[in-house]
Amino acid sequence: MKTEDITTSLDALKQTNNRASVLTTNELASITMIEATALAAARKYFAESGFTEVLVPHITKVTGACENIDTLFELDYFGQNAYLVQTGQLYLEALIPKLGKVFCIGSSFRAEPDIDERHLTEFALVEIEFPGDFEQLLVHIENIVHAMIHAAAVCSEIEALGISPERLKAVTKPFARITYTDAIKKLNEMGVDIEWGDDLKSRHEKILAGNAPLFITHYPEAIKFFNMRRNENPLLVNSCDLILPYSGEAVGAAEREYDHGQLLDKLEKSSMYKMLLERGKTIEDFKWYLDIVSEHPIQHSGCGIGLNRVMQFILGSDDIRACTAFPMNRESLM
Amino acid sequence: MKTEDITTSLDALKQTNNRASVLTTNELASITMIEATALAAARKYFAESGFTEVLVPHITKVTGACENIDTLFELDYFGQNAYLVQTGQLYLEALIPKLGKVFCIGSSFRAEPDIDERHLTEFALVEIEFPGDFEQLLVHIENIVHAMIHAAAVCSEIEALGISPERLKAVTKPFARITYTDAIKKLNEMGVDIEWGDDLKSRHEKILAGNAPLFITHYPEAIKFFNMRRNENPLLVNSCDLILPYSGEAVGAAEREYDHGQLLDKLEKSSMYKMLLERGKTIEDFKWYLDIVSEHPIQHSGCGIGLNRVMQFILGSDDIRACTAFPMNRESLM
Repeated sequence: MKTEDITTSLDALKQTNNRASVLTTNELASITMIEATALAAARKYFAESGFTEVLVPHITKVTGACENIDTLFELDYFGQNAYLVQTGQLYLEALIPKLGKVFCIGSSFRAEPDIDERHLTEFALVEIEFPGDFEQLLVHIENIVHAMIHAAAVCSEIEALGISPERLKAVTKPFARITYTDAIKKLNEMGVDIEWGDDLKSRHEKILAGNAPLFITHYPEAIKFFNMRRNENPLLVNSCDLILPYSGEAVGAAEREYDHGQLLDKLEKSSMYKMLLERGKTIEDFKWYLDIVSEHPIQHSGCGIGLNRVMQFILGSDDIRACTAFPMNRESLM
Repeated sequence: MKTEDITTSLDALKQTNNRASVLTTNELASITMIEATALAAARKYFAESGFTEVLVPHITKVTGACENIDTLFELDYFGQNAYLVQTGQLYLEALIPKLGKVFCIGSSFRAEPDIDERHLTEFALVEIEFPGDFEQLLVHIENIVHAMIHAAAVCSEIEALGISPERLKAVTKPFARITYTDAIKKLNEMGVDIEWGDDLKSRHEKILAGNAPLFITHYPEAIKFFNMRRNENPLLVNSCDLILPYSGEAVGAAEREYDHGQLLDKLEKSSMYKMLLERGKTIEDFKWYLDIVSEHPIQHSGCGIGLNRVMQFILGSDDIRACTAFPMNRESLM
């Protein structure tokens, strides 16, 4: 692995002020072609596996929010309070009863003021939802991410950037797995100060993953999105994050709760919902979603794959700004 | 053509208040599958023709605006005045020097307060830019739209909706063409009260198109986007709109001006720019784009294809709200 070379060739692409000055560089052309190749590989998998593409809304009520509602961009929508979407998940889930496997690829927005190597205000999210269980979910994620990485490995632009395709070709299925509980134990054994119930930080994830993709499964319910399905152990949910070297968490995934009573209970107890109440919101905004789950109680699962995070692994870059043509942050508006 | 049947089967999908109530209908599943089929056909053409996909920003300065800046959604972007993108055109154009043929598929936003069969606040736009001339542009548009329509024609969901695939299979290349000037003459001969220099209204476009796609070419410079390339007749630009039955204007296209002096002159004289000055904007916001054109004066052309408008033709529907899963307007926010 030629990490130093990679860093050098992509260095100029970290620039987000005056982004225009790097738009006509060979390096930017190369990463754009690699990104397009990875996207096409995901789409090929969706076509072969019977997933239908859905165009979800990007201006939403709170049902377009993920856990961290503090990073919602607000918008005046003809006098109504609206947000830029963070996840199309609930909109995709609504189509499962008739369409089965569905996916969307689009922008996720976060009002992140930080200008650094980890935060973007807009990034591409590849999301799937389908009727099926937790094991099937992990297989889909493995297949999609594996396809993206291996398609990139044979893209001629990889070598043009001085990146060794061997590191990418070495990625094999199945990906390693560890439970959240075992991950905490392992970190403690390594002397890391973290307790069961804490969320894993990026630095923890990178230690655990080492040089290969790693699934961390079965997180505590308290730190995850409200509709993740409860495990037989009621403290846990059937969730999983995929951790990649260079980027950390690249995929968030879970089996979804489809028991209406449980779902309502989980929503009302969620920290996200408490934050929404403080902002004057009510359960009413979620009514349409709860109603669809109530009328169509189908076991289903899904995930969101951060394209730029997968690209960080492909390019071997610690800096998300170097991995897409238009990395959006506070200073890159153009 | 079974127009009445089609209208009947799609009637329920026109509803934009309480949209959730139609999300699990067979009809909505059918139109979503047809939309996905049409999108996949466009992507197949792009892959076969050497176009690279680009992810463009959806929060922009005024360079993300199209002609009608009155319909920009405004956003507070960390104290800066920002907008939701209406076209990724200038961002795509910036990548032509190194990438050649490029495309993007994403949301275009319009703050349209009307709730009716023609207006949406968010819709999918398929945009291409490439090094090449006006004739090559029309061939690309023909090929893309033809591919979308014919892919839909063989999708089983078409017959499930009671739509005759024969109407779609009857669409052949090349599409008919008429110049704007001849179109005005023809309308006048038909007794329509319209003068040279007026923009064509939807009702005019439908009269001209009849039952088949129609290119209207070479519009007056004064009513078109600032960077459309001037024709040998200096009153005209090398532009073209594709008109489809049921929807009207489905594609806006043009050769782009690549002479820096001409481009600057055209920008400063454009009605869009005058409106921007009134809002306190300066030429500065366009500087990065003007600089790239100045440094890379390459003949190039491009277009934006309104997916929902193509879907209206495919479905034989006069109502854009019936042609996508999540038609966005003032009342459909969810």
